[in-house]
Amino acid sequence: MPESVDQIRIAILGASGYTGAELVRMLARHPAADVRVLTAERQAGKPLAEVFPHLAYLNLPNLVKIEQVDWSEIDFVFCGLPHGTTQEIIRALPHTVKIVDLSADFRLSDPASYAQWYGHEHAAVELQREAVYGLTEFNRQGVRSARLVANPGCYPTATLIPLLPLVLDGLIQTDDIIVDAKSGVSGAGRDAKQANLFCEVSEGMHAYGVGHHRHMPEMEQELSIAAGVPVTMAFTPHLIPMNRGEFITTYVKLAGKNGPDDLRAALAARFENEPFVQVLPAGVVPHTKHVRGSNQVHISVFKDRLPGRAIVLSVLDNLVKGASGQAIQNFNVMNGLIETMGLEQAPMFP
Amino acid sequence: MPESVDQIRIAILGASGYTGAELVRMLARHPAADVRVLTAERQAGKPLAEVFPHLAYLNLPNLVKIEQVDWSEIDFVFCGLPHGTTQEIIRALPHTVKIVDLSADFRLSDPASYAQWYGHEHAAVELQREAVYGLTEFNRQGVRSARLVANPGCYPTATLIPLLPLVLDGLIQTDDIIVDAKSGVSGAGRDAKQANLFCEVSEGMHAYGVGHHRHMPEMEQELSIAAGVPVTMAFTPHLIPMNRGEFITTYVKLAGKNGPDDLRAALAARFENEPFVQVLPAGVVPHTKHVRGSNQVHISVFKDRLPGRAIVLSVLDNLVKGASGQAIQNFNVMNGLIETMGLEQAPMFP
Amino acid sequence: MPESVDQIRIAILGASGYTGAELVRMLARHPAADVRVLTAERQAGKPLAEVFPHLAYLNLPNLVKIEQVDWSEIDFVFCGLPHGTTQEIIRALPHTVKIVDLSADFRLSDPASYAQWYGHEHAAVELQREAVYGLTEFNRQGVRSARLVANPGCYPTATLIPLLPLVLDGLIQTDDIIVDAKSGVSGAGRDAKQANLFCEVSEGMHAYGVGHHRHMPEMEQELSIAAGVPVTMAFTPHLIPMNRGEFITTYVKLAGKNGPDDLRAALAARFENEPFVQVLPAGVVPHTKHVRGSNQVHISVFKDRLPGRAIVLSVLDNLVKGASGQAIQNFNVMNGLIETMGLEQAPMFP
Amino acid sequence: MPESVDQIRIAILGASGYTGAELVRMLARHPAADVRVLTAERQAGKPLAEVFPHLAYLNLPNLVKIEQVDWSEIDFVFCGLPHGTTQEIIRALPHTVKIVDLSADFRLSDPASYAQWYGHEHAAVELQREAVYGLTEFNRQGVRSARLVANPGCYPTATLIPLLPLVLDGLIQTDDIIVDAKSGVSGAGRDAKQANLFCEVSEGMHAYGVGHHRHMPEMEQELSIAAGVPVTMAFTPHLIPMNRGEFITTYVKLAGKNGPDDLRAALAARFENEPFVQVLPAGVVPHTKHVRGSNQVHISVFKDRLPGRAIVLSVLDNLVKGASGQAIQNFNVMNGLIETMGLEQAPMFP
Repeated sequence: MPESVDQIRIAILGASGYTGAELVRMLARHPAADVRVLTAERQAGKPLAEVFPHLAYLNLPNLVKIEQVDWSEIDFVFCGLPHGTTQEIIRALPHTVKIVDLSADFRLSDPASYAQWYGHEHAAVELQREAVYGLTEFNRQGVRSARLVANPGCYPTATLIPLLPLVLDGLIQTDDIIVDAKSGVSGAGRDAKQANLFCEVSEGMHAYGVGHHRHMPEMEQELSIAAGVPVTMAFTPHLIPMNRGEFITTYVKLAGKNGPDDLRAALAARFENEPFVQVLPAGVVPHTKHVRGSNQVHISVFKDRLPGRAIVLSVLDNLVKGASGQAIQNFNVMNGLIETMGLEQAPMFP
Repeated sequence: MPESVDQIRIAILGASGYTGAELVRMLARHPAADVRVLTAERQAGKPLAEVFPHLAYLNLPNLVKIEQVDWSEIDFVFCGLPHGTTQEIIRALPHTVKIVDLSADFRLSDPASYAQWYGHEHAAVELQREAVYGLTEFNRQGVRSARLVANPGCYPTATLIPLLPLVLDGLIQTDDIIVDAKSGVSGAGRDAKQANLFCEVSEGMHAYGVGHHRHMPEMEQELSIAAGVPVTMAFTPHLIPMNRGEFITTYVKLAGKNGPDDLRAALAARFENEPFVQVLPAGVVPHTKHVRGSNQVHISVFKDRLPGRAIVLSVLDNLVKGASGQAIQNFNVMNGLIETMGLEQAPMFP
Repeated sequence: MPESVDQIRIAILGASGYTGAELVRMLARHPAADVRVLTAERQAGKPLAEVFPHLAYLNLPNLVKIEQVDWSEIDFVFCGLPHGTTQEIIRALPHTVKIVDLSADFRLSDPASYAQWYGHEHAAVELQREAVYGLTEFNRQGVRSARLVANPGCYPTATLIPLLPLVLDGLIQTDDIIVDAKSGVSGAGRDAKQANLFCEVSEGMHAYGVGHHRHMPEMEQELSIAAGVPVTMAFTPHLIPMNRGEFITTYVKLAGKNGPDDLRAALAARFENEPFVQVLPAGVVPHTKHVRGSNQVHISVFKDRLPGRAIVLSVLDNLVKGASGQAIQNFNVMNGLIETMGLEQAPMFP
Repeated sequence: MPESVDQIRIAILGASGYTGAELVRMLARHPAADVRVLTAERQAGKPLAEVFPHLAYLNLPNLVKIEQVDWSEIDFVFCGLPHGTTQEIIRALPHTVKIVDLSADFRLSDPASYAQWYGHEHAAVELQREAVYGLTEFNRQGVRSARLVANPGCYPTATLIPLLPLVLDGLIQTDDIIVDAKSGVSGAGRDAKQANLFCEVSEGMHAYGVGHHRHMPEMEQELSIAAGVPVTMAFTPHLIPMNRGEFITTYVKLAGKNGPDDLRAALAARFENEPFVQVLPAGVVPHTKHVRGSNQVHISVFKDRLPGRAIVLSVLDNLVKGASGQAIQNFNVMNGLIETMGLEQAPMFP
C-alpha cells in the first residue's frame, strides 16, 4: 500500500452479518482504511475467524461489544446493526466520529412516515433530520459535508439510479411507476430462519412483502423530491435462489413524445462520467452475474409492446452497491478521498 | 395396474428432450397409457437409458426415427418436436391417430399472425384451423372432440388461467395488462447452448426476449377472444436459476369499483371444482416450489399500493402443467378418461 | 384408488419435517394407506397447509400433539421424531400398533454401543432388542414379522446395499473399507440453523463429522454381522449444495484374485430381482439426479488404479430410499402388501 | 496505481474462457500488468464486452487471432488454449517472451508419459524438457529463472500442496494414497456441452473419469519425485453443483509412529510463511466457500477411525489458485515482483 495516504481508524458495528463481512473484504484492500474495531454483541470475545473463517488470514481484531469500544481511537463508524437498534447507539457517539449507517433508521426524513412504516416513534429525531441520504451519484455535495450518512437500501439504490434522472427530466409520468424487483437471498441477512434454509429457498422462488415492503416509502420519498409532487408507486419484491444480485424491472409511462431511445440517451448522458454506472447499448439486457462482487450498476431501456410505455432494467450486487460498497463510496466522499478507492474490484464471473 | 382400463397405444415424438422425459415419467403410472414408440432423430437406435438413465428401469422401447414408426400400431401421439418442424409431420399422420402437439406450431389460429411472429408461412394451414387450443380448464368441450390439440405454452398457461376469468367477467381493464414472468431453466430446452451452461445461469438472473417473446401473441389471442376486443399486453420474461417453476406477477387495472377481494372471490368461485387450480387465501403468497413436479396451479391476488390496481400472482411447474402434464390432461379428456388420471403425483418438496 | 385393498389407518409422528412431508407425498397415492393423524408438537393446531403449503390440496387432518392421539383408531405409526425423543414415546404405544421408526433410536442393537455414541443410556432397552433393522433387501423375513422396525439411516442404506453382498461373499477385505460420502442438504433437517442457510450452503461444500459421524457404528454393526468379525471402517461425509441425493464412493481392497468385474457380476446377480436396486453396466457412472424422488438405488463398480483395489459407487435419494421410501417399503412388507406399492413414482429429472 | 512499477506488456491467448476472464479480473488491479492483447480464434474481431459483458467497463482491446499479434510489443504471455493446441504456438513465439502455460501440454516432463495419456506424440519435446512445473510454493527457484512455466492443474495443486511435504518428510506411506476429489463446474470449461447445462448439473452430483483422469499422471510425477520412488495413487474426481471450488479428501497411511497431529504440525511449520496457504487448527474443517475468489489454500488434518490412517482435507478456488491466480503468482516470481502482487483480493462470501 502507498504510504502517503493517511489512515482513517474505523469501527464496524455489527460485523458478524453479511454486510459486515463485505465491508471487511473491501476495506482490506483500501489504502486509507485502518479497521480497528469489530463489534458483534452475541459473538463478542470471539476471533473474527470463528464467524467468518474466510477472513481469518487478515489478522483483524477480535469481536467486542459496542460498550467496550474506546471511541477516542476511532475516526469513522460503519454501522450495520439491525433496523431499529441503531438510533440510540448513534446518538451516543462522540461528534468527532463520522458515520455511515447501513440500517433503515435514518433513511426516512419525515418522523411521521418513519412511525407509520416501522410501528414506533423514532428515538433520535434530531439525527433523523441531520442524516444525509447517501445515494452518492445524486447527493455528492450533501455527503461530502455530512457527519451522518444514511446509506440507501438495496432496492432503492437499484431502482432510483435509473428512475431519478427520468423523473427529474420529466421524461416519464410519475403516477404509474410499477417496479417488479428480484433479489438474491443474502439480502435477507444471516439470522437463522427456517424460511431462508437452503432446502426452502433453492430450486424455487416467490414474492414477499407484496404491497407493503419497507423500502417503498424510501423510494417514494426520493421520487417525490425529484418530481416536486408526492409520488406513489407499485413495488413487488421476489426472492431468487442465488446469493447476490438484484434485478429491477420497471414499467414506466412515457411523458410527452418521448420514446425508449430518449430515455436511454438521457441516462447515458447523465451517467457518462460516473465510474459505477453503465448504461448498456440498445438491445443489451443486463445480468446480475455481470456485476457480482463489484460496485457496478448496469442499466438498459427497452420499448414496451404497450403503446406509450417503456421498460427500464437495472442490476447491482445487493451487498456491494446495494450496501457495503456504496457505504465505502460514501466513506470516500466524506473523507475527501478518491471516490473509487477500495472499490476497484472487477465483477467475479462465474 | 387395474386390468379394466383399455390401453391406448402411444407414440412420443421427440422423446429425448425434457418434455419427453416428463411425459414418460407420468405416463409410466398412467393406467391407460401403453407407450409403444419413442422417437428422437439424432439419437435413433439408442436405448432410452442412454439419453435418460433415470428411466432405464422402465424397460421402454429403443429410440427410433419418425419414418420408422408403424402408425397402424399407434392410437395417440404426443408431439414434442421443435417449433417449426411439426407441421408437415402431423399432416402426414393417419387420421385415426389423435394428437397433442406441445410445440407452438398450432397455437396461433391466424395464419398471418403465425407468419409475422415466426418469420415464415405456415406449412399446414388447414391443420392450424382444425387445431383446438388446449387450455383444458377453459376449453374442455373443444378438447373432448378434437383430433389435434395445440398444447398451450408454459407462460400462457400460467398467465391465462388467472387472467381469463377476470377478463371474461369484466373485472379488469384490458388495455393495461403488465405481465412480469419468471421461469426456471428447463423451459429453455436440452440443446447444448453456452448461454444455458451451469456456470452462465446459476447465481444470477436476467430478462430475455424483452418486448418480443413468442408467447405474447398466444396470450393476446386468448385474451382478445375473452375480451371481445383486441388486447395488447406487456410481457417480460426472466430466467431464474432453478430447474423448474414459473412465477407470474401480473399488474392489472381494476374495472369499475372492484377491489382485490372481488377478484379473489371470482377466481375462487371459478376454480372451486377444478382439481388442478388452487386459489390461495388472502395474504398467502404462492411459491413455485409448492407445485414442483405436480400439475397444480396456485393463484393469489393482492392489493396494489397504486390506487385502482391489483397484483395477481400465479405459479406452476413449466414442465408439468406448463407442458407435459397439461398434455396428459388433454389426452385424458380426448379419450374420455378421468381428467386427473396419471396426474395425481403430489408436488415434491424440497 | 381400487376399492379392494384394505385401508390401514396411519399416524405420522413428527410430520412437520422433510421426512414427514415425503411420507405424505408418497402415501397420498398408496392404495392401502389412510393417513388419519399427523403430529407436530410446536405446530399443533395448525393445518398441514401452514407448514407444507404444497400438500394443502390433499385435505389431510390438522396437526396435533402426540398426547391428543386416539390410538384405538390407529393401526400403524411412522415415527419421524428427533433422535433421542422416540424411545419413551414408542414404549407407551399400544402393542396392537405396528411401527416404523425413522430415527436412530433403535438401529444399534447393543445398548453399550448406543450409550457410547449418543452419550446417554438407552431409555427402552427391551425395545432396542425387539427392533428389527429394516434394510429391506437384506432382512425381509425379519421385517415381515416385526412389530417395530428401525428404519436405517440414509448413509448406511446407500453404503450397505452394495457392500453387504461383497462382504458376505468374501469378495473384499474387511479391514480397509474407506467410505467417502456426499449428501444433499435435506439430510440436515428443517430446523432453523445458520449453518444450513442458503447463503452458507450454496456455492460451496465441506466435510463434517470427520471421524465421528453417528452413522458409523450402524454401518459397522451390519458389516460386522455380515463378516462374522468386528469391522472398523473409515467414513467421511460431505455436504453438497443440492436438496436431495447421496453419492457414496467406497474404496475397497479385493480379496483373493477377484477383480472389479467379479464384484459387479456378484452384485448384479444378487440384485437381479430387486425392484429398487439397479447395478449399472461396466463404465457407467451413477448420478444422484437419476434417482431423485424415487426409491431407486444405482450401483456401479470400477477398477482402481491402485493394484488390488476397486471403487464402488452408489447413489440414492436420501429422503426416499434413504428415509421415507424405505419406511413405506417396510410398511408394505410388515402388512403383507406388494412391496412396491405406493413407491412406483419414477425419478424426476431435471 | 503507483507510477514507480515498470509495466509488463501482456498477451492472454485464449481469453474467452473462464480462466481468461479470471486473469483479466485479477490483472486489472495488478500494478505491473499492462494487458495489451487478448486472443480468441472464433471470436476474433469482437470487443471483450461481447464475450464477457462484466469486463466491458475496463476498456480492454478487442479480441484478435493469434496470427495478428505483433510480438515485438509483448513481454509476457498467459497461454490458456485448449490442451493439445498449445505446443506449436508456444514453439513459434520469440524467445524474448516469457510464458505461463495454463494447459496440460507441458506438465508431464516425460514424453512417453505424455504420449500414453494424451494419445499422440508431443509436438514440442524440447519445450516439454525446458518447461518448469509451476507449483510455486515448491519450486520458486525454478520458476524464477524459467522462460516457460507449466502451470499445474487444479486437482494437482489442491492435492500436492498438503501431500508433498508429508511425502518429503516421510510421514506417510506412498503406496496407498487415495484421493477423493470434488470440483465445481467451472473446471469443465465454457464450451457448450449438454452435460454441463444447468438442468443436467444442478441439484445432483456424480463421479467422472473414474480411474483414468488426466490429472493423475501429473500428480504421480510430482509425488514420485518427492518420494524418490515411483508412486501410484487412487484418484476419483466428482462434479459438484457449484461454480467454483475444489475439495480434496485424501486418505493416507501413516508412516512409523506418526499421528494426525504430527502431520498437522509438519504442514503448519512448512507453510508458516506462505501467504497463500493456511493450515487450520485441529478440528476445523475447510469449506470451499471460504477461499472462493481468492488465491488461498486451506488445509486440515483429521484422525481416521481406521487405525494407522489419517484424513487430509484441502480446498482452493479452481479458477484462482487452481489456475489463473497461480499463473499470476508465477508471473510475479518470473518477473522479480512481490509474489502476492495483484492477488490480495479477499475471498467473497457469500
